[in-house]
Amino acid sequence: MATGKINVSVENIFPLIKKFLYSDHEIFLRELVSNATDATLKLKHLTTIGETKVEYGNPIIEIKIDKEGKKLHIIDQGLGMTEEEVQKYINEVAFSGAEEFLDKYKDSAKDSGIIGHFGLGFYSAFMVAEKVEIITKSYKDEPAAHWTCDGSPNFILEPSDKTERGTEIILHIAEDSTEFLEKNRISELLSKYNKFMPVPIKFGTKTETLPKPEGAKEEDKAPTQEVDNIINNPNPAWTKMPADLKDEDYKGFYRELYPMQFEEPLFHIHLNVDYPFNLTGILYFPKLTNDLNVQKDRIQLYQNQVFVTDNVEGIVPEFLTMLRGVIDSPDIPLNVSRSYLQADGAVKKIASYITRKVADKLSSLFKNNREDFEAKWNDIKIVIEYGMLSEDKFFEKADKFALYPTVDGNFYTFEELQEKLKDNHTDKDDKLVILYASNKEAQHSYIETAKARGFEVLLLDSPIVSHLMQKLETSKENVSFARVDADHLDNLIKKEDTQISKLSEEEKEQLKTVLEEVIQNKSYTVQLEAMDSAAAPFIITEPEFLRRMKEMQQTGGGGMFGMSNMPEMYNLIVNTNSDLVNEILNTKTAKKKERLINQSLDLARLSKGLLKGEELTNFIKRSYEIIK
Amino acid sequence: MATGKINVSVENIFPLIKKFLYSDHEIFLRELVSNATDATLKLKHLTTIGETKVEYGNPIIEIKIDKEGKKLHIIDQGLGMTEEEVQKYINEVAFSGAEEFLDKYKDSAKDSGIIGHFGLGFYSAFMVAEKVEIITKSYKDEPAAHWTCDGSPNFILEPSDKTERGTEIILHIAEDSTEFLEKNRISELLSKYNKFMPVPIKFGTKTETLPKPEGAKEEDKAPTQEVDNIINNPNPAWTKMPADLKDEDYKGFYRELYPMQFEEPLFHIHLNVDYPFNLTGILYFPKLTNDLNVQKDRIQLYQNQVFVTDNVEGIVPEFLTMLRGVIDSPDIPLNVSRSYLQADGAVKKIASYITRKVADKLSSLFKNNREDFEAKWNDIKIVIEYGMLSEDKFFEKADKFALYPTVDGNFYTFEELQEKLKDNHTDKDDKLVILYASNKEAQHSYIETAKARGFEVLLLDSPIVSHLMQKLETSKENVSFARVDADHLDNLIKKEDTQISKLSEEEKEQLKTVLEEVIQNKSYTVQLEAMDSAAAPFIITEPEFLRRMKEMQQTGGGGMFGMSNMPEMYNLIVNTNSDLVNEILNTKTAKKKERLINQSLDLARLSKGLLKGEELTNFIKRSYEIIK
Repeated sequence: MATGKINVSVENIFPLIKKFLYSDHEIFLRELVSNATDATLKLKHLTTIGETKVEYGNPIIEIKIDKEGKKLHIIDQGLGMTEEEVQKYINEVAFSGAEEFLDKYKDSAKDSGIIGHFGLGFYSAFMVAEKVEIITKSYKDEPAAHWTCDGSPNFILEPSDKTERGTEIILHIAEDSTEFLEKNRISELLSKYNKFMPVPIKFGTKTETLPKPEGAKEEDKAPTQEVDNIINNPNPAWTKMPADLKDEDYKGFYRELYPMQFEEPLFHIHLNVDYPFNLTGILYFPKLTNDLNVQKDRIQLYQNQVFVTDNVEGIVPEFLTMLRGVIDSPDIPLNVSRSYLQADGAVKKIASYITRKVADKLSSLFKNNREDFEAKWNDIKIVIEYGMLSEDKFFEKADKFALYPTVDGNFYTFEELQEKLKDNHTDKDDKLVILYASNKEAQHSYIETAKARGFEVLLLDSPIVSHLMQKLETSKENVSFARVDADHLDNLIKKEDTQISKLSEEEKEQLKTVLEEVIQNKSYTVQLEAMDSAAAPFIITEPEFLRRMKEMQQTGGGGMFGMSNMPEMYNLIVNTNSDLVNEILNTKTAKKKERLINQSLDLARLSKGLLKGEELTNFIKRSYEIIK
Repeated sequence: MATGKINVSVENIFPLIKKFLYSDHEIFLRELVSNATDATLKLKHLTTIGETKVEYGNPIIEIKIDKEGKKLHIIDQGLGMTEEEVQKYINEVAFSGAEEFLDKYKDSAKDSGIIGHFGLGFYSAFMVAEKVEIITKSYKDEPAAHWTCDGSPNFILEPSDKTERGTEIILHIAEDSTEFLEKNRISELLSKYNKFMPVPIKFGTKTETLPKPEGAKEEDKAPTQEVDNIINNPNPAWTKMPADLKDEDYKGFYRELYPMQFEEPLFHIHLNVDYPFNLTGILYFPKLTNDLNVQKDRIQLYQNQVFVTDNVEGIVPEFLTMLRGVIDSPDIPLNVSRSYLQADGAVKKIASYITRKVADKLSSLFKNNREDFEAKWNDIKIVIEYGMLSEDKFFEKADKFALYPTVDGNFYTFEELQEKLKDNHTDKDDKLVILYASNKEAQHSYIETAKARGFEVLLLDSPIVSHLMQKLETSKENVSFARVDADHLDNLIKKEDTQISKLSEEEKEQLKTVLEEVIQNKSYTVQLEAMDSAAAPFIITEPEFLRRMKEMQQTGGGGMFGMSNMPEMYNLIVNTNSDLVNEILNTKTAKKKERLINQSLDLARLSKGLLKGEELTNFIKRSYEIIK
């Protein structure tokens, strides 16, 4: 038996690190700016705890392009390195200085915002550079060092005459990476990854207009000056305390995050927790449309103010991925698979914390300014309904503030709705029947008929509401939903008293025969009903159950498999007490009978949106004849 | 000045490899099965070229779960390793045996299908295992070796009594990875990554029913036997030559790829090229709907029969990502960013090869069986139109076979269309005006009117066709498209002869005044036209330009910015030669005049699909009154 130690050969691993450390080469800039930030924050920490007497000052990080020389410079004014430290931190791959630093200053350094973790970030420079130089001068009183490496594992280390504290990294950009010598490309990267990093980052200069001196004439130009172009906001709103922020600060930060977004957010939720995990952030409710697909991936994930990704799947509960904003947490494991992420205990806690904060915010908005909450309902309902369907804990809370609007623009909570409807909408079996419409225009005549009878009609038009109704029907007792065109009203809300038909049984038989003869090819089930004589003579209805199952299938899942391909089914309700129906029964000529039936059927179909194409064209032609 | 060599310390790098080698931990199984496959194919190669005398036989790879022992075994019958080779290949991280092998046997090994590349794959085992054992016996006459490593960089190497040739890897699954001891999870992974790998993979056994022995009675059960459950198809269709495959083979392979897909593909394209890059594959045209979003990411990308990804963005031209099928190429660089991929010369060539093959296939289908091509047109047009818009080279080819169907189901190429229409559809300025409808039902009355005048009407209903029309209008000479409801026909195709109006100028003025008084609030532009007296009295039209710009905006890009939010604009065309219009003019009572105008306007709006909600309900009530 032999024992030994696995050997990692630098010649073998180095090309891998260079090529495959990150699948996205552009990441190198994020890594180098993160290192520069760490070097600066470490110095700050040391001065804060009195470990060193040097002046911290107002250090910045500078990025410079030397297009002619094909070089990119990243310069910081942080703690720098001695020759010995270069040997230790640079020449030993995967020896992270940040980890060692955090270890050493465990308690005091916890909130210093230091980013580095594995110490590999620096080597990402070789993904885009054929040669890398480090010129560095420590805050300690030691000579500066100059390190050069051409991408082979060999380096040169020599003294340098650099006098200012800090580190300058010089990348000699490789032939296949010249995009990183373009001002626009670097600007884009800085704005993507470093927009909110905690040390000011300078990239070039810009011209600023100064106020005119006193006594200047109207026609005098205002003086200008060149100033540093600082590309980041080192103190973004989410790093502050909610108490220190006003409503306009939150709106301002939203514009910083989404400069191309012209609409203001409806409201925000400030997240701030440090136990059992560290998380800060601000979520915004934007105006949402009914399209579920297009509005994801808008929440940005940061770790210590460094942008990581805008794919928060697995971290933020799915129903909240429609929101916008920022989450910053050093505790989210990132280089793991999404499925692993979803099983991770810490991540689960983060998700449930976010859910709870969102529910609490909605609840307080509802309680404190109901009018405003109602005004925003249509823009936020899709998130709330989705949440009620997918998270039971959210359902419990949201059940108290979820609103059910009527077609007339009144808003009720479910409890209020039950109270409001209980007299008129309870059927003979003690079931509360809630009437709704999904489209005010398309179901107009049905809505009008219900309202004329004194019923309330809800307007439930979100694409997932059929799933929510299904859930409410099973979680509440003795409640059912029915769309206004699901049947005629006496059948939808069955009471004890029934209308008396003007027709005898024999006349009914006769009528049914006549009707079925004329409309034989149209596949409607004829249903004779004794209704109010003023009600429409013909009404087409579409039974609730089948229609809802089909809708549920169409919006992903639920319902019954294969339902979405079933044909629509309609009933033709004929009001035996209507004058026109009487006329149909008593008209002598078959031709006139047929004309009356067809025209009435077409009108009923028109009312339900079913008269189309050639049939509509013929109806219009016939109608022009009739008016002439 | 000092020089030195960067040092990679195994203690530092090993935890990184274990944790972050792949962002998806499940990849470990793919890597280990790939190694087992390589070991088998290498042996096959050596026996083929006569390098060794051992019997190749019918080697398989076996995967076994030992749930109680918390172990997962991967066993191959390949070339195995001597103790020396274990030292070399396993104990030196990133020393790829496959690369060395390919180097040594450069010419003969090119098509052997060996996968390994960087030699890191084996270490992915540590992502899920706390301890890994290798028990291996080389095909050479040397004793077997047993290697054990508990995840620290320390290993134990001792002799083993294994007698059969090959390698067994034993993973002692870690606490946080017990999912990989579940039969279903392993099945799922094998079917995702290894379904078409070239060596048979056994996972458990299954029961097979045998034929009944002769003379068995009716009630006797058929005998069964336990057989190896081979989970892969080592010779998938794309690895064969097109000449060796029949149509049903292609269909069968489609079902293998998409077992949940019930519909058959319309046709396939077999890709097979080895210079200047190596690529094989089969693409299928499925039936496509008009929804552009939902049907991407269905093409699977393989490298040497190992599944890599189903995101082929950047590799396959975007318009073809709606197809299905398989692409297998060892030449696609994978661990690079998508943007880098799109700039890569080899990948560009692959994309243009695929485009050309698709165009050629479509062209030959069109030439060889036009009837069939026409029957399939509606299911494939979206890909072809998208391709014509996005790739100029594809446009040139597709212009010869792209079809333009009429509402009556005739199909013309653009050239045929020009020939067919040139007499009747050329206006007085020599411009060819092509009439089209986007919806047969909704534009029925307009279509009928155009057909009654002897015009052809195309049915162009794909969501991107407005962009294509725009392109055709600019790339062809003297051609323009107009939807049938864009204006009345005499204006759409202006000829020299004009209809004579029955009304005098004075009467026209009078009519216009009356009309504008009644319909003042409805924001229609009234346009008096002398038309055939049998034509409809009122017609509502929607000018082509604005409508098309809006549509183009809605389907992403083109048109003019902000257009999609502009209100619709309509004209009301009044036929001064119609009897009804005459009646309106000559009716004495204002009330009747108003009623006639309103009912006619409502009928015109109905015909254009504009009468909705309350207005429709009122129209229906009025119409019931009229028929009584």
